[in-house]
Formats: sequence, structure tokens, C-alpha cells
Amino acid sequence: MDSKSTPRVVIVGAGFGGLTAARTLARYPVQITIIDRTNYHTFQPLLYQVATAGLSPGEIAAPIRWILRGHHNVQVLMEEVQDFDLTRRVVKVSNAEIPYDYLIIAAGASHAYFGHDEWEPLAPGLKTIEDALEIRRRVLLAFELAERQAASGEKQQRLNFVVIGGGPTGVELAGTLAEIARRVLADEFRSIDPKRTTIILLEGGPRILPAYSEDLSGSAENQLKRLGVEVHTSALVTGIEPGAVHLGQTRLPAAVVLWAAGVAASPLGKKLGAQVDRAGRVLVNPDLSIPGHPEVLVVGDLAALKDEHGRWLPGVAPVAIQQGKATAHNIGRELRLEARKDFHYFDKGSLATIGRAAGVAQFGKIHISGFVAWLAWLFIHIFFLIGFRNRLIVLIQWAWSYFTYERGARLITGDKRLPGWEAVSDSESQKQQVAS
Amino acid sequence: MDSKSTPRVVIVGAGFGGLTAARTLARYPVQITIIDRTNYHTFQPLLYQVATAGLSPGEIAAPIRWILRGHHNVQVLMEEVQDFDLTRRVVKVSNAEIPYDYLIIAAGASHAYFGHDEWEPLAPGLKTIEDALEIRRRVLLAFELAERQAASGEKQQRLNFVVIGGGPTGVELAGTLAEIARRVLADEFRSIDPKRTTIILLEGGPRILPAYSEDLSGSAENQLKRLGVEVHTSALVTGIEPGAVHLGQTRLPAAVVLWAAGVAASPLGKKLGAQVDRAGRVLVNPDLSIPGHPEVLVVGDLAALKDEHGRWLPGVAPVAIQQGKATAHNIGRELRLEARKDFHYFDKGSLATIGRAAGVAQFGKIHISGFVAWLAWLFIHIFFLIGFRNRLIVLIQWAWSYFTYERGARLITGDKRLPGWEAVSDSESQKQQVAS
Repeated sequence: MDSKSTPRVVIVGAGFGGLTAARTLARYPVQITIIDRTNYHTFQPLLYQVATAGLSPGEIAAPIRWILRGHHNVQVLMEEVQDFDLTRRVVKVSNAEIPYDYLIIAAGASHAYFGHDEWEPLAPGLKTIEDALEIRRRVLLAFELAERQAASGEKQQRLNFVVIGGGPTGVELAGTLAEIARRVLADEFRSIDPKRTTIILLEGGPRILPAYSEDLSGSAENQLKRLGVEVHTSALVTGIEPGAVHLGQTRLPAAVVLWAAGVAASPLGKKLGAQVDRAGRVLVNPDLSIPGHPEVLVVGDLAALKDEHGRWLPGVAPVAIQQGKATAHNIGRELRLEARKDFHYFDKGSLATIGRAAGVAQFGKIHISGFVAWLAWLFIHIFFLIGFRNRLIVLIQWAWSYFTYERGARLITGDKRLPGWEAVSDSESQKQQVAS
Repeated sequence: MDSKSTPRVVIVGAGFGGLTAARTLARYPVQITIIDRTNYHTFQPLLYQVATAGLSPGEIAAPIRWILRGHHNVQVLMEEVQDFDLTRRVVKVSNAEIPYDYLIIAAGASHAYFGHDEWEPLAPGLKTIEDALEIRRRVLLAFELAERQAASGEKQQRLNFVVIGGGPTGVELAGTLAEIARRVLADEFRSIDPKRTTIILLEGGPRILPAYSEDLSGSAENQLKRLGVEVHTSALVTGIEPGAVHLGQTRLPAAVVLWAAGVAASPLGKKLGAQVDRAGRVLVNPDLSIPGHPEVLVVGDLAALKDEHGRWLPGVAPVAIQQGKATAHNIGRELRLEARKDFHYFDKGSLATIGRAAGVAQFGKIHISGFVAWLAWLFIHIFFLIGFRNRLIVLIQWAWSYFTYERGARLITGDKRLPGWEAVSDSESQKQQVAS
């Protein structure tokens, strides 16, 4: 590295890992270019709120260049990274090559369908704003189509919503959907009864929330059941078709199927030429660099590293945030000709929410469930949301929903058709008089 | 009409006209079915705020069935009306026929391109939430693509945004775009200078805001110029191609072109079999019924009626609201065997906003312009926005934007490509080093 020129750091991805790295690094004498496919940073823990029509996308996202506007050594580019040349030290984007002295890859993860990519259009996952809007569209549309069908005198079928995957995302989705059906929409339809909707949560393992302690798993399951969610464990999905889910021999009709069961790392991991695990995550050194290239660092969901107990670090926001900071400080140390430090994750605890005013929280040996866990979840997430205005508005939306059960973003935008609707209903296309 | 059964009223469209009719009629002893293509009511006067990334869609829209939830004699159906059979008195929707004793059609208007439908994909208009999101996408994307291009060392071209049509919509869009370029985004880019964006407003007639008095037109033009908008009157657009607008011999390069110049009534107007004007609006009797069918009423942008001075009523929200009320009360009178009343529009005035803290207002002989007009506009629109929570949140968003210039919904969602970008720029697809 030429000591006369400012070191260039390129960061790929502006999620929790990349954004934290950028903000931390910005105070060092470096030139930073941060690249993301979208122009905004998404607060992923609240995506399920957009998916369930509680919040608008703009309330949980902020433009990356707005967040970093105060740092004049940071350039933000909306680009899609296509490849890397680790020898020449460039990142290849659509129409250019961007050179670097240090490269931090924080490209994250998306859904995985266990080898069944054909399930993707039938069962959307929840990793991006667009995913959330698609889920919202399907959920709200199912109620509208059912009302329309019943109003025209056709037989009303039971509305089944199936959520596949019993981790925090699946639990949050299922709990909130139950709330919507039982409370929010209860009085607004005239031909159907939304309370007769069945929400089903399918988990392939022996218990939901497997990353939590057993007692909290049990508590979460009870809280879900109280909300009216049917929880099925050891329920492995073997097939998904329009309008139904297959569990071995059992065929479960479903108007809407949501996927919260598998995650795969970004394909950019493989392009680094380093070893990856089965999910595509890059096996990194203790300082988060890849073997043979100390100037290339991987953070967040894309990195595979074990903690001091030999357990793989989970793909959650606090890990990405701490790794983002750690790599930034390590680059800073190197600039001062100091040695790097290995990364150590400080686990401050886990929280999951289960519909309104319910949740589970685990801080080391402290296990909390119910209303207090929900409050903790709420305040911690408000605190970490970026942008004071967003915090204020989300707080208002939540308070409003808490007291009135209303949800602030119940719009169906886009296509007014639901894949699999004809398969799930018995309707025949004939003109009928609307029953009075 | 069988005096033993409850009269059935079918309302087509849940905009200002249809929604007001439904709310007013609900207190009468009738059974109402209101049909709309979407599940929400859009507060159209604030669409330009969604289009310019200031507000999220959920903040200016509310679900129709939520608005009408308290009225148990009102059923809401999300359907597309295809035709009418006025003899049999049914409305034909996708899979059924809905019978009526009274029919109120409030299907509104959409854009018209003066016979050049091929301009539509190149120059989006602003009538629906989806329109607004498309405009937002293109505007924000233009800045991102320019930054990307300049960062990779290519020549930076001037960014031109062209708004076609000098009525209130065009003026609001142009003023807000200028604000965004000059203020909001000014410090957030490193390779381009957003302040070097040119906003051009093209009006085919001799002055902008033709429906206002001449002095207010002049004031509006001055306010726009102070914001940095180039205003061209007597500028007739003869062609639109990807990346440019044609005015006779002149070719004007344009990264983004927005259409605010022509409106056509819904095609449902023609299906009634009554006489329509050149824009497709239905020529109605003084009581808003169509000739030969007193039980069929048309309100809002779809209706063509003259006021007592012989001028056609404009397609604005207050007209639709008053007509919605009038038809509802006329039906009520008829149920009591009283005579109907002719419709009289009470013009309470007009308001248009021009970017931040500027506007024009006309209340009869009172003409106001500048900051006071803007305040009046703001408070009146907050007052009429449906839903207390929306009012609170919109107020917060506005206050925040006023003091900080920030905008609350700067997300690019959907396709990351901009039609015509290659045509407007000189870029060639070759790999280049990013300039330091």
C-alpha cells in the first residue's frame, strides 16, 4: 500500500454489518465506498410488521446515503456486485471495476428452499421490503377474495394460512396473522367471518424456537395457542403446490403459504474462492479475514465462525453489528501498525415477539416471557431503529395498534390475483346472483 | 320497487364521490354494496407527496372496509366492474351480477395522452398509489444512476426532469422536485451535484394554473422560478421518446418525464349508454341522473355538469364530495316519497401548493399567495385526511420535513432500471477504473 495515498475500503452490503462497518470506519483516515443493490437500509427485525400491514416500508427503512451523509469520506453507490478479482484487488460491478486496499463483504443471506427452488413463488420468504410487500399483498387479498366469493353466493371455504418454519420469524408472522384475523378484521366483513381463519405454524424439528431454552419454547407455544395458532412440530414439508402444502401423505389446503424455514448465504460468498459451508457461508479466520487474504473480511450472515464454546454464531443482527465494528477497528489498528484482535461475540441475549403484548426473552440465565418480554423487545427495537423520525412514527403506530388493534398499512398494491386461489376454492365460473 | 324489501344501492368506486355517498346513505334504511378495484381509499391531493418520497402510501390511504366498518348495512367488495345491464338493473363483475334499485357510479378518471397512448410508459401520470410509486422510483433512480456513472469516471450529464402540464398537479410536482434536488439531496452525493438538476415545467396554454385568476398564476410562476424551476408556457409537447421530449423542432433531453396534462374519464362512463363528452364524462341531468334512468346517478370526475354560470364543473375533490352527498340525500328523499333537488355546487375556493411553504389560494374574490396559502392548504388537507392516526403521522412528517428538509419515504422499490437512461447519457459499456 502506497503510504502517500489514502487507503481505500470497499464495503459490499449496507445491512447491519456493512452499515456498522462504514459508520465505524468513517472516523479513520480512509476513503470508503459502500455498495448496495438497493438505496436504503432495511431494519429487518421489523419486516414482519410490513408483511402484516402494520407499518409502511418507509417507516422501517432509511436511505443509505442519508444515514452516511455526514461522513464526507464515504461514497454510497447503488450497484450490483458481480464478482471479485482478489489478485488485482478490484470489485466488479455492472459497468466498472472498483479498486480496494481493504474489502469488507457483508452481503447477507436470503431464503433457501432445501433444494426446492420451485417452491419460491408459492411460498414467499421475508428478507427484504419487497418480500414483505408480497406477503402483505397475499394475506390481505385472501380475505378480499373470500368475501367476494361468499357475497356472490358461493360456498365459503375455510381460510388456512400456513407458516413454514418455527424460528423467530415464523413465530412472529404466525402470531401477528392470528391477531389480524381474530381482532383487526373481525368486524369489517359482511359475508365471511375472519375469525374462522386457521393459522398453522409448521416446524420440522421437535420444538419451535430451537435456539431458545426449552422452557421458553414451551411458553412461546402456549402463547401462540392462546392466540389461536395451531402449532405442529416434527412436521416436515415435503411438497408445496398452488393452494396446498404436503406433509408426507397429508395434504393441507392453504390459501397463503409463507416461508420462514431456511436461509442461504449470498452467492457472493462462493465468488471469493474461499471455503464455504453447506449454506454458502464463508469460513473465516478468527479476525474475520479469509485464508490467504488478510485484506478481505467477511461479516454478518455471510460469515461462518464459531464462538468460544464451539457453536456456530447465529445469523442475527447483533452478531453482524459487532463484527462490523470489529473489522473496522482492526483496519484502524493496522493503519497504526498495531496487531489485529480476534473477534469475540458478546451475547447480550435474544428476544422474540409473539403477536400483541406477548413474547419471550433470554438473557443468559434470565428467561422472561409474556408482556414484559414484549415490552423489552419493543423498546430495544425502537432504540436501534435508525432515524429519530422513524422511531417516533413507529412508536405511534405501535401504541395506536396496541390500544385500537388497528394496523396502519393495509393496502393491497400490485396484482389483484392470488396464486392457487382457484385450486383452494370450489368456485366455478358461472354468473350467479349475489345473495341478499 | 317492492315496498317490503330494503332498497339496494350499489356504488361503483370508493374515491371521494363514492365514499361520501356511502357514508351519507348509510344512515338511511337501505342496503349498500360499494365496489372498488382496490381495497383502499386514496387521498389523492397528497399523491404528489408519495411520488416525491415525502410520505408512504399507507399514510395517505385507508382500507375502505375499515372506514365503513361501523355501518352494518354497507358491504365492501374488491371487484372490477365490467359492464351494466340497465334494463335488468344489474352490475356485472368478474364472476357475478349484483342487482340494484339505485346505482351510483363514481368511477373517476385516469390519465389521457391526447391520443398518444404510446407516451404512457414513458411519462407516468399521477392518479393512483401505484402511479406515485412509479414516479418515485424513477426520480430517485435517476440520481442514483447519475452518481454511479459519475463515480466510474464517465462524463456527468445534466439531469433534466420534465413535468408536462401546468395545472395544480404539475405545479406541485415541479415545485417539490426542485426542493428535493436543491435541498434534500444536496449533500448526499459525492460524484454528482444534485443542485445541478434542471426541473422544467411545460404548459401548452398561455399561463400555468389556468383555472386560477391571472394574478395568482403569475404569483405561482414567480414562486416556482424562485425554487429554480424553468417554466415554459405555450409549450406544446409533440412527441415523447425514451430520454427526451419533443416540442416541435426542439428536442429536450430528459432523464425523467412526468405527465400531469390530461385526464380522461373512466371507460365505465361509455358503458352506461348515455351521452358522453370528448373526455368520456357522462352528461348528466341537474339531479345527477342519466337521461331515461332516474335510478342511475353519476358523481365526481365521471360526471359532466355545468354550474349556474354555464361553466363545466371541474374534476376536483370538493365537487365529488358534494355530489356524493347530494345523490345520497336525493335517494333518501325519494324513499320518503319527496321530490329530488337539483345539484348546486358551493365553491369554497381552490388551493395549490408550490413546494415548501409556498402556494396560492383563491376563495372567491380573496386571493392569497405565499406562506399563508401554504398553511391553509396544509391544515385543510390534514383535516380532510381520513383517519386520526394518518393525520397525526402526516402532520409529523410535514413538520419534520419543514424543519429538516428530510423526506420520509425515499425508497427505490421494484425495478432498478430507468427507461431511456442509456439514450440520455453518453455512457459506453466498457470497464473503467473508478476515479478516486
